[in-house]
Amino acid sequence: MANNPIVPLNELIAQFERLPGIGKKTAQRLAFSILEQPPERAEQFAAALLNARKKIHFCKVCQAFTDLDICSICDDAQRDKSVICVVAEPKDVMAFERTREYNGLYHVLHGVISPLDGIGPEQLRIKELMARLGSGEVTEIIMATNPTVEGEATASYLSRLIKPMNIKVTRLAYGIPVGGDLEYADEFTLARALEGRNEI
Amino acid sequence: MANNPIVPLNELIAQFERLPGIGKKTAQRLAFSILEQPPERAEQFAAALLNARKKIHFCKVCQAFTDLDICSICDDAQRDKSVICVVAEPKDVMAFERTREYNGLYHVLHGVISPLDGIGPEQLRIKELMARLGSGEVTEIIMATNPTVEGEATASYLSRLIKPMNIKVTRLAYGIPVGGDLEYADEFTLARALEGRNEI
Repeated sequence: MANNPIVPLNELIAQFERLPGIGKKTAQRLAFSILEQPPERAEQFAAALLNARKKIHFCKVCQAFTDLDICSICDDAQRDKSVICVVAEPKDVMAFERTREYNGLYHVLHGVISPLDGIGPEQLRIKELMARLGSGEVTEIIMATNPTVEGEATASYLSRLIKPMNIKVTRLAYGIPVGGDLEYADEFTLARALEGRNEI
Repeated sequence: MANNPIVPLNELIAQFERLPGIGKKTAQRLAFSILEQPPERAEQFAAALLNARKKIHFCKVCQAFTDLDICSICDDAQRDKSVICVVAEPKDVMAFERTREYNGLYHVLHGVISPLDGIGPEQLRIKELMARLGSGEVTEIIMATNPTVEGEATASYLSRLIKPMNIKVTRLAYGIPVGGDLEYADEFTLARALEGRNEI
């Protein structure tokens, strides 16, 4: 693209390239697809970008994305207010909602503790979580950070913080993925699956 | 995402999903990345979309994308005006420019003849090409449509149209790709490579 002298095209390609997982070739293909379609398409796309960014912010309570003051999950009288599932990112909330198996509330930390990246507890939405635990309504916190070193460290940090408040702290089960094959399970997963075995 | 009640987020995801090669999961990831970044990012992206779509149109001469009346290639006095390379899509022009080996002009057809898709010669920029050939300045037309059934049909249709004007019509060489392995070349490519063999 070094030879391409069309400045507005290069700017559009550069914007697509800044998206996660989009390389130079894909960015170019996406930019061309915008030019090949009617102008209304680009206008709708631009409006959706501005509208989403303007209207969506963090829920005052759980810190997930919402276009309301308090998100529809926190505001739902049908949901079990005694359990909070703590996740690292807003997208994790949607992953749990898709299971249709969880009826409690959520709390989004917006990251995990990672000293190498300069992220300590004070950079996460931890004090917002602690503020929710004071009323005595919450009886269980489910730690649902990813099973990485940072995710584990964050879970155990929070666990040490919360346990003295007489609230049960649990962790998602480790084990063989459903449909997974023993042969392809790594030794750590297999060891945890053995450790967490249940009577049938 | 059926459970996601955030309308502006769903609209943004839907816009990303309309891009070629972007599925539901990727669209969701891209939309979240917009929300996770400062508002200026979304504003720049929206501005780039609108600006590119507004300022970029087809070159009056070669029908490639440009933000000028006549594109910088057609307008370049250094380029060889006696050769025109005929391609199907604007992105093909960039592929040739990247080689830095071609110094002639281009003509973009904006598609290939494809009766099954209802695309006949009159839907392509063929009369614009013919209009360029009248002055006698052009002595060679290089057909550079893709080696598909439709690309071949388009090349031979144009060849029949142009040859009576005493202009040489050539086709890109077929053969083993550079760095390719004979073992993996299909029989058609190999047959064409044999047919087009050169003395060394």
